[in-house]
Amino acid sequence: MLDNLVKLTNLKRDIAEINLDPLQRGGILTPEARAALVEWGDGYSVCDFCAGMLDRIKTPPVEEFVHGMLPEFLGTDEVRITHGAREGKFAAMHALCDKGDWVVMDGNAHYTTVLAAERAGLNIEYVPSSGEPDYAISEEGYAEAIERAYEHKGNVSMAVLTYPDGNYGNLADAKAIADVCHDYGVPLLLNGAYSVGRMPLNARELAADIIVGSGHKSMAASGPVGVLGASEEYARTIFRLSSTKKNKEVELLGCTVRGAPLLTLMASFPAVLERIRHWPDEVEKANSFADGLEKLGLKQLGDRPHRHDLMFFMAENLYQISLGAKKGRYFLYRDLKERGISGIKPGLTRQFKLSTYGLSSEDLKKVLQAFQEIIDSYPAAIG
Amino acid sequence: MLDNLVKLTNLKRDIAEINLDPLQRGGILTPEARAALVEWGDGYSVCDFCAGMLDRIKTPPVEEFVHGMLPEFLGTDEVRITHGAREGKFAAMHALCDKGDWVVMDGNAHYTTVLAAERAGLNIEYVPSSGEPDYAISEEGYAEAIERAYEHKGNVSMAVLTYPDGNYGNLADAKAIADVCHDYGVPLLLNGAYSVGRMPLNARELAADIIVGSGHKSMAASGPVGVLGASEEYARTIFRLSSTKKNKEVELLGCTVRGAPLLTLMASFPAVLERIRHWPDEVEKANSFADGLEKLGLKQLGDRPHRHDLMFFMAENLYQISLGAKKGRYFLYRDLKERGISGIKPGLTRQFKLSTYGLSSEDLKKVLQAFQEIIDSYPAAIG
Repeated sequence: MLDNLVKLTNLKRDIAEINLDPLQRGGILTPEARAALVEWGDGYSVCDFCAGMLDRIKTPPVEEFVHGMLPEFLGTDEVRITHGAREGKFAAMHALCDKGDWVVMDGNAHYTTVLAAERAGLNIEYVPSSGEPDYAISEEGYAEAIERAYEHKGNVSMAVLTYPDGNYGNLADAKAIADVCHDYGVPLLLNGAYSVGRMPLNARELAADIIVGSGHKSMAASGPVGVLGASEEYARTIFRLSSTKKNKEVELLGCTVRGAPLLTLMASFPAVLERIRHWPDEVEKANSFADGLEKLGLKQLGDRPHRHDLMFFMAENLYQISLGAKKGRYFLYRDLKERGISGIKPGLTRQFKLSTYGLSSEDLKKVLQAFQEIIDSYPAAIG
Repeated sequence: MLDNLVKLTNLKRDIAEINLDPLQRGGILTPEARAALVEWGDGYSVCDFCAGMLDRIKTPPVEEFVHGMLPEFLGTDEVRITHGAREGKFAAMHALCDKGDWVVMDGNAHYTTVLAAERAGLNIEYVPSSGEPDYAISEEGYAEAIERAYEHKGNVSMAVLTYPDGNYGNLADAKAIADVCHDYGVPLLLNGAYSVGRMPLNARELAADIIVGSGHKSMAASGPVGVLGASEEYARTIFRLSSTKKNKEVELLGCTVRGAPLLTLMASFPAVLERIRHWPDEVEKANSFADGLEKLGLKQLGDRPHRHDLMFFMAENLYQISLGAKKGRYFLYRDLKERGISGIKPGLTRQFKLSTYGLSSEDLKKVLQAFQEIIDSYPAAIG
């Protein structure tokens, strides 16, 4: 194994011209972040002038970013840097919930929310969505889920809302859900992996107690890096100091992102603030693209009109094509790739998600054109 | 706060020509890693062709690296990528120990080992070092510490050895310590943050059950990234799959380093293997440098002759100078920086650590020369 190493030394990325992967659309670096990556690439470079706490480093200005800019941006009392949204969720659950407690989460929750709860030894009560075609999550659902957990004699110590969820891009009524949770004395954690850095969002206005965001998913940062914000009431426990090691926060193991990803998050931040101002344009682009695909016989599920760039489509016609096409269900991936388009999971045809975030209208026209060409090139399946 | 953002966009690192910081000497990127950082900088780029498990990605060849090369390199049955050594220690403790259990660790342990235990809700029984001047850790100490934990009616579920420790650079007899721990049925975790990637090391030969390493500290990688290796017996529990989410490992929250730092770890790996072959030269350089500083009146503590590049010095003469010098105890930092040298913590004079790793003999000669000049420039303190 250790005699064939040359393959590790010149790894090139093979990417299409237009990438529709929701996972990747919000994580493309700005030129400033790319420069920061090179400048701060060496291990522990961020620690050049550290006095013992990552979030208090003044050179580079981490302290101002973490304690000034980010709390204002997220609308929380306290913020810390994490390795990503999932690590933020685990930290909050591990700090605030006891093993055996119950956590309530939307049925559209990302798998990492489930893993975070499982890792923390928590039981899960789901808030089911309304199912096809809307997959909506309601505040009543949260009340019912909390009641069900109580029936198990469970202590419900947290609720999570995925905002938006990563399948349908649905934005539930977070404020109404927070209010319901608070009626039961349960704090609400907002999973903003697909919203923080893409769209206007303020935890305080939504009455969310805790919020996580993802640098590599939605803040134009090189991962893994994320943010974890909390109101004073919960921050006190989540960011508690060690009983023996001065100035070290236990839940963060002292420091989290001790390297370049943090610097890319900082370097991209001004551009991220700017792009959030253009969110209405992004939503309009997404809806216009969805209209285009629907004219080709696909159907967009989830919120309609849609309020996010992440969208889920049913494509019965593409599925029919796959039944007869060469390479079967991989035809769509191949045919799109031949046209310079990637990001729809290989093998999916009948239903898939994609994102239009940050793509130009011209690019999206090319994508629609490609779908049109592909559908037209399999005449048997059209009828 | 959000109206003064320009300071985030062009952050330059201010580094000296010669950096002695032990934290940073092993984390300087190779040219190959620097290229990988740029190529794979965008968020989630490593996930271009992922089918659901980070460690099974074939393009780039993560699977071969994680399941082939790294187990052979570390001498363990299984390896996974982590965010760093501390996150690896916590994952192992959280998976293998129950809240309230006891963990035994060397008195020289890194603060993050203590935090990992505290976060996992464990009690700590220390193996005291022999104190000044050797600060040695013995296998008998481990037996006694385990016995002491038993006296507390404690269940001892893990022992940790820092190899070498981060203060003195001491390499204890890991094999003898592992044997003692095994006599008590306690698994040994080796913290190789300062050894994996710097020096020859094989967990199996040392009878260590679990080993953690740090990419940014000692494997020429851009952090945060690390490795966690374990024998089959413990890997089964640490890397257990979720009960509900197919193919997702709970303790890793599915995936860990979903970004460029992993690619830098891979890209540097051939060069890391090569540099490990030159470890005897590094040890010789370190000892020769220590001799040089001792001739100037300093004293090297810890293992003598030393067996690692990380070294701890007592400098009574520099302390005496600091009592009268302009800027007081910051004089050494300033005077070294004026000579293009950094890495000794600002404000330290009487005792400090440094590393000679990867520095040329010429550079080390310059450092000795600088110490000589500085000492000579404060004549009053010499006598």
